[in-house]
Amino acid sequence: MKKLINDREQFVSDMLAGLKYSDPKIDIIEENVVVRKNKKESGVALVSGGGSGHEPAHAGYVAEGMLDAAVCGEVFTSPTPDKVLSAIKHVDNGDGVLLVVKNYAGDVMNFDMAKEMAEAEGHKVETVIVSDDVAIEDPEMRRGVAGTVLVHKYAGYLSDKKQSLNQIKDEVEKMMTSLFSIGMALEPCMVPTTGEYGFDLGEEEMEIGIGIHGEKGIYREKAETVDKITDRLLSELFKYNDSKELILMVNGMGATPLSELYIVTKNVMEALEEKSIRVTKLFAGNYMTALDMQGFSLTVLNHDDHIVSALNAPTESTHF
Amino acid sequence: MKKLINDREQFVSDMLAGLKYSDPKIDIIEENVVVRKNKKESGVALVSGGGSGHEPAHAGYVAEGMLDAAVCGEVFTSPTPDKVLSAIKHVDNGDGVLLVVKNYAGDVMNFDMAKEMAEAEGHKVETVIVSDDVAIEDPEMRRGVAGTVLVHKYAGYLSDKKQSLNQIKDEVEKMMTSLFSIGMALEPCMVPTTGEYGFDLGEEEMEIGIGIHGEKGIYREKAETVDKITDRLLSELFKYNDSKELILMVNGMGATPLSELYIVTKNVMEALEEKSIRVTKLFAGNYMTALDMQGFSLTVLNHDDHIVSALNAPTESTHF
Repeated sequence: MKKLINDREQFVSDMLAGLKYSDPKIDIIEENVVVRKNKKESGVALVSGGGSGHEPAHAGYVAEGMLDAAVCGEVFTSPTPDKVLSAIKHVDNGDGVLLVVKNYAGDVMNFDMAKEMAEAEGHKVETVIVSDDVAIEDPEMRRGVAGTVLVHKYAGYLSDKKQSLNQIKDEVEKMMTSLFSIGMALEPCMVPTTGEYGFDLGEEEMEIGIGIHGEKGIYREKAETVDKITDRLLSELFKYNDSKELILMVNGMGATPLSELYIVTKNVMEALEEKSIRVTKLFAGNYMTALDMQGFSLTVLNHDDHIVSALNAPTESTHF
Repeated sequence: MKKLINDREQFVSDMLAGLKYSDPKIDIIEENVVVRKNKKESGVALVSGGGSGHEPAHAGYVAEGMLDAAVCGEVFTSPTPDKVLSAIKHVDNGDGVLLVVKNYAGDVMNFDMAKEMAEAEGHKVETVIVSDDVAIEDPEMRRGVAGTVLVHKYAGYLSDKKQSLNQIKDEVEKMMTSLFSIGMALEPCMVPTTGEYGFDLGEEEMEIGIGIHGEKGIYREKAETVDKITDRLLSELFKYNDSKELILMVNGMGATPLSELYIVTKNVMEALEEKSIRVTKLFAGNYMTALDMQGFSLTVLNHDDHIVSALNAPTESTHF
């Protein structure tokens, strides 16, 4: 295993220490709990997190205009409830706390336990569960992937606009009804804590419908040119979203060079133009990764003037 | 070869088309010549470029506060003089044009030919040659690498401050006397136009002193933990720069996950702290890449209040 690490046990804490050097506006209040140094004095506080390995998600989004705290588990491992509770207690200014949780059993359970513990201590806490990954057909089982980052930004904006906890929860849940993602990989990721690859792929193979934790895809297919790959992914998304005005995110999985992400972007945009679908806001970059996986995901969301304003609003995160 | 491309001949033009979708403030005035849509009405215009494969360099830095144009060659191939000439003619508003050229024979020759052609047409043109890569001992032969991006930003700031062409050239040349970089790779890059890797590395090997065009390093060594790697690179840089106050860039080579870049950052910062060297401005991210190479480079520059102000000044580039 060749990786830029020292000790696999220290992967997450070393990574967060490096993030803190590069972003002096964050603090690490206890191991793996990242908060804004300038705590918000009013407004609903936003806490997200989950396993590490998705950088810049989520700690890179702890910033004015986005998250108030990120609770980072070990690589691809849910954070424990006591860590989530520490984050809630730190960020709550009395206006309540919204937990933004990706739909994985461990995350949902641990954030929920933390919520109960916090409520017992008098905090007002609500949860939104992001499950945008249509690789999984059953809506209950759908994983939360790159769309989560758009939720962070939208909720951060609503909080800055002083909406209440319930209002933000409602708005976000309405937004999520048209939020869908799907991803693919040319190469799996290597998990530094185990030294293992999530799956093996032949020289001519690709995976469609991969997860962000090294899980293989739903379909193993012959690797194609990028126009065919983007058509393939779009056809899955169109099953769920037939809007003619979309917000689009082209998300790199961690080791995809920017040049290739832009080639993907060009092909997606042309395919949408051919279908007379207008993209009113485009993101292209690494937003929600799976360590060093090579591949990308596409996320679509129905256009809405208010949401586009929210996504365009300033944030101090350098990763959005 | 598995890559997210359609046609290897279209790699650069497809990539730039994708960049244009994601940055509506740029224009492509002719094939591979990227300019700002809002042409600067006064002030020295900055033109850079070189072979492609270094994204976001250089086209991603065409933005208010940085470059006025980037001339993009094919992958790892110098742009032709006629393209550079087109860029010069487009951006010159009468205050002159500064060419920022990385020290490679082809780039130097082609930008120089363009300069002569432009001067024959009455344009005032000067050149600065960036050669920050201390992997090469002979200063004449030193390659231009990640430090070039700091030159873009500094020169862009000086231009916005309405300094003259000669003033900017002088200031940048003064800055470059303390600008040094060195890089390493755990994995080579695959050149999509040939389907070949730049070199082969064993499971336990790394390269120290790699270039950004797939060239192997100066030293092949046993792959080490990141603390030893950063010490190794810093010891090379300290031969050239013994300042106690530094500007530092930790630059990913294209396929290095952000998590590992932050682990590198932590180790570099701690090593500098141990030597009582203060970092007054830190960059950590992908600034000058070599396609999908896995590795990183370190760039140091002597602290200077004026330069730090310049680097902190706003730019519309989302990549800086």
